[in-house]
Amino acid sequence: MSPYPISPLMGQMMSQPLLISGIIEFAARHYGGNEIVSRRIEGDLHRSSYRECHRRSRRLAKGLQALGVNMGDRVATLAWNGYRHMEAYYAVSGSGAVLHTINPRLFPEQIVYICNHAEDQFLLFDLTFLALVEDVAARCKSVKGFILMCDRERMPAKTNIQNLLCYEDVIDAHTDDYVWPMFDENSAATLCYTSGTTGHPKGVLYSHRSTVLHAYASALPNALNVGSFDTVLPVVPMFHVNAWGLPYSVPLSGAKMVFPGAALDGKSLYELFESEKVTFSAGVPTVWLGLINFMLQNQRTFSSLRRMVIGGAACPPAMMATLIDHFGVQVIHAWGMTEMSPLGTAGGLQVKHLALPPDQQRQILLKQGHAIYGVDLKIVGDDGMELPWDGVTCGHLLVKGPWVISSYFRHEGADVLQNGWFPTGDVATIDADGYLQITDRSKDMIKSGGEWIGTIELENLAMGHPAVLQAACIGIRHPKWDERPLLLLVKRPGLEVTREEMLQFFEGKIAKFWIPDDVLFIDALPMGATGKIQKNKLREQFKEYRLPTAGMESSEP
Amino acid sequence: MSPYPISPLMGQMMSQPLLISGIIEFAARHYGGNEIVSRRIEGDLHRSSYRECHRRSRRLAKGLQALGVNMGDRVATLAWNGYRHMEAYYAVSGSGAVLHTINPRLFPEQIVYICNHAEDQFLLFDLTFLALVEDVAARCKSVKGFILMCDRERMPAKTNIQNLLCYEDVIDAHTDDYVWPMFDENSAATLCYTSGTTGHPKGVLYSHRSTVLHAYASALPNALNVGSFDTVLPVVPMFHVNAWGLPYSVPLSGAKMVFPGAALDGKSLYELFESEKVTFSAGVPTVWLGLINFMLQNQRTFSSLRRMVIGGAACPPAMMATLIDHFGVQVIHAWGMTEMSPLGTAGGLQVKHLALPPDQQRQILLKQGHAIYGVDLKIVGDDGMELPWDGVTCGHLLVKGPWVISSYFRHEGADVLQNGWFPTGDVATIDADGYLQITDRSKDMIKSGGEWIGTIELENLAMGHPAVLQAACIGIRHPKWDERPLLLLVKRPGLEVTREEMLQFFEGKIAKFWIPDDVLFIDALPMGATGKIQKNKLREQFKEYRLPTAGMESSEP
Repeated sequence: MSPYPISPLMGQMMSQPLLISGIIEFAARHYGGNEIVSRRIEGDLHRSSYRECHRRSRRLAKGLQALGVNMGDRVATLAWNGYRHMEAYYAVSGSGAVLHTINPRLFPEQIVYICNHAEDQFLLFDLTFLALVEDVAARCKSVKGFILMCDRERMPAKTNIQNLLCYEDVIDAHTDDYVWPMFDENSAATLCYTSGTTGHPKGVLYSHRSTVLHAYASALPNALNVGSFDTVLPVVPMFHVNAWGLPYSVPLSGAKMVFPGAALDGKSLYELFESEKVTFSAGVPTVWLGLINFMLQNQRTFSSLRRMVIGGAACPPAMMATLIDHFGVQVIHAWGMTEMSPLGTAGGLQVKHLALPPDQQRQILLKQGHAIYGVDLKIVGDDGMELPWDGVTCGHLLVKGPWVISSYFRHEGADVLQNGWFPTGDVATIDADGYLQITDRSKDMIKSGGEWIGTIELENLAMGHPAVLQAACIGIRHPKWDERPLLLLVKRPGLEVTREEMLQFFEGKIAKFWIPDDVLFIDALPMGATGKIQKNKLREQFKEYRLPTAGMESSEP
Repeated sequence: MSPYPISPLMGQMMSQPLLISGIIEFAARHYGGNEIVSRRIEGDLHRSSYRECHRRSRRLAKGLQALGVNMGDRVATLAWNGYRHMEAYYAVSGSGAVLHTINPRLFPEQIVYICNHAEDQFLLFDLTFLALVEDVAARCKSVKGFILMCDRERMPAKTNIQNLLCYEDVIDAHTDDYVWPMFDENSAATLCYTSGTTGHPKGVLYSHRSTVLHAYASALPNALNVGSFDTVLPVVPMFHVNAWGLPYSVPLSGAKMVFPGAALDGKSLYELFESEKVTFSAGVPTVWLGLINFMLQNQRTFSSLRRMVIGGAACPPAMMATLIDHFGVQVIHAWGMTEMSPLGTAGGLQVKHLALPPDQQRQILLKQGHAIYGVDLKIVGDDGMELPWDGVTCGHLLVKGPWVISSYFRHEGADVLQNGWFPTGDVATIDADGYLQITDRSKDMIKSGGEWIGTIELENLAMGHPAVLQAACIGIRHPKWDERPLLLLVKRPGLEVTREEMLQFFEGKIAKFWIPDDVLFIDALPMGATGKIQKNKLREQFKEYRLPTAGMESSEP
């Protein structure tokens, strides 16, 4: 029942549910010959099509049904981006079961935790993760069977995994006359756990409705602009918020799909971009760093790539400059969250911006852009009162929309929503044109003498220095100012910069009290399972660190 | 309650209804300064914006509420494409009432019929239609008040209309603090009557859900491809299936909107296209004929127009050739129906077609294209069995989707749907790539000696002759062959062609038995209220016509 008032006069249109199965069926019927190209774990390039994907996903659906998978049951995957993973996406959700994509970069203990929390019935996995699954299998109590997504001849001769099946056997054992069932569009479709920095991971349970609406909205010209002429390579993993919805929005658009498998290094990606004439790609800044470095070192250019979506973390200005100015790629700076399916905003210029000088245009492109249609944004103060959209006032960012979470899966505790809005945990500004700019994660902001210092801007500035590869800024306790910024840097191989040069580099670029109190050079930054810098680890590691300014009670920071 | 099975596990996303008010709110927040430019009945160009439209539509909503309009009540309009009509679109539907757009080209008796059938509570109308409303007002029994959409100083000093209000007075009497109500997305939003060729017009009652989903799907890159960089001029009237949804898909995309008002002649349209730098337009072939003729006669070119949607009737090949080859415009050949909100398919090439020679590409562009995502198509034989997608087999076209009708408004009688599918009344082929080609309306097909002859192809061929302006082909009773084609032509002013030349023109271009048995030249074709040729009138007019072949029982047609 709808929780909203019913009009005395209802529309007289077909009540057809929005279902994920409709997407692959549509792609097979209208773009059946369009390719799905996958770099396999086996090393070779595999060529499939939407027609073939539809056929095999129906076989798999029938196979899972025969194995006892019912509507609402969870079926997990531990897999890279590839055609079999795509088939599983449609087979599992399309049949009414729930696809639970597990991030293989989590610790085994976390994998066991979420597998048991979700009560997964089956686990489909890539050959890469055989040792991992052998490690955790016995502890995943609810799993009735493990399905290895590889050719028959690659199946291990010996393994400790009970009830191990070959994916191709399941497919081959069934015909493709399966008809996708119709059911309520609010039924659960996929499950993805956030790799929270504290506490246990929490599950986000997407519905068919939320997934299809997100696919519509994210393919729009103002969002990712996916059409049948595109060739799309999702670098963002299918175990990371459904690869930002691309396994849905790309077939919906009939575009050619290219999956990179496990080979996410710069060279492998570049070669695949070129050989398959990729026009559009999506990923986090870290992965683009590898690609850009490979291309610069080897003096390569893109021959087909036209645009790139960058999300998951703020795109450093230096990276955007390289991509746009050096490589001639259009950059769409996007923002979202696991709790948002994930797309919330997408960057880009408006007509009126075309008259601005290039550096002002760049400032706009560095913002995270506009809400995509369906998402509502607002910023509020600590008191919950809405703040103005003036591009200056910072507030806690809240969101609303049909693909935004209402509660976590099987999660006890406090209400997630605040008066119907989801608190993102981000601090942001919104300007008069509705452009969002993320200032920081609430918990990463540094409070110095009653004023907020945003760490993203400091890190972006630091990465503008040619010798800086990566940067992270954290707050360190200070006897006078409560907190002061400490900048942690990883140097670019072969290049040098000193602490003093770095501090001087900031001068004139930001307010004086924002300049870090100290700079430390470290070998590497701790990265989380989704490619983000783990600042909580850095804060833990440096919690006893004494800033050089800490003794000078009278100094002006 | 959903009529579909519920999963034991439901998704945990926000249950936010898809409402029309969300579109204008979004446009106002994110593209608030983007313009709505209208050529007014008053003659001048009026400039508004999404922010202003949102403000005034909330005032109007409050005004209508104060006048006693409740949720589900019908509010009618008799108006051209303009900013006030757009405000009414959002005010009426957004507040939960139902916008009933009346086609002013209907006969007064039909207007009275549908107004009473719909039980309209208020009628908003343009100054153009003052005499019409004065004629029908007393017979529209349910209407409590008439609102004239004009400036205060244009209000008539004297009128027989009881309870006549000025639109601007209603707006001015209210503040813009109105908050759009939330209600079930299946609530009725708009009502549009088909101008059926037989019997009374029938009402199609759209819901908020169907309207918003249609807006998402129609703005996609593979469909109309509307983005914030566009300037869109809908020539198709807002009283004709909601101007193909553009009043929703354009603000959703933040594009600039240009309304032509009542000035739909070639010169006026051309001047507006140029002065407002229109990039994209939509309309029926008849209106493009006027524009093309004006431009050719005056040797004009487009400086900003990039693409055009042509629908409502098949685009004649000669028109497409002129638009593409001469004017350099991309043509999107679309197909839909009032019963489909209206968009069903949109034409265009696929990547693989780019390698084809231009004439083969043109043949593909002349088809009505692909289903837009959300619409399902199939063709069936007289026995209801599904026919193959081979591009050759003709069948009755059936459709399905969340913005397709399930039943007509307050319409007694036989079920509209056939096993859940809506029978369109069109005969079509679908090829292996899913491209639809409408062969004819079922009732227009000519049955000759047991074989079908499609009239659209005959008319398109005829219009390929330089001296032919318009063509209509109808079946005439024939003693031997049941029916034979009669071709009715309107000559292009100043050009000549004879019956014999015309018949010769067909030779070698189509099967011999398709060549019409006779050609008649007439001054004009009867056009319906939506700009389509009324073949039923022609059949009536020529029902006693004796074909020259009718006496020759032994002749081979």
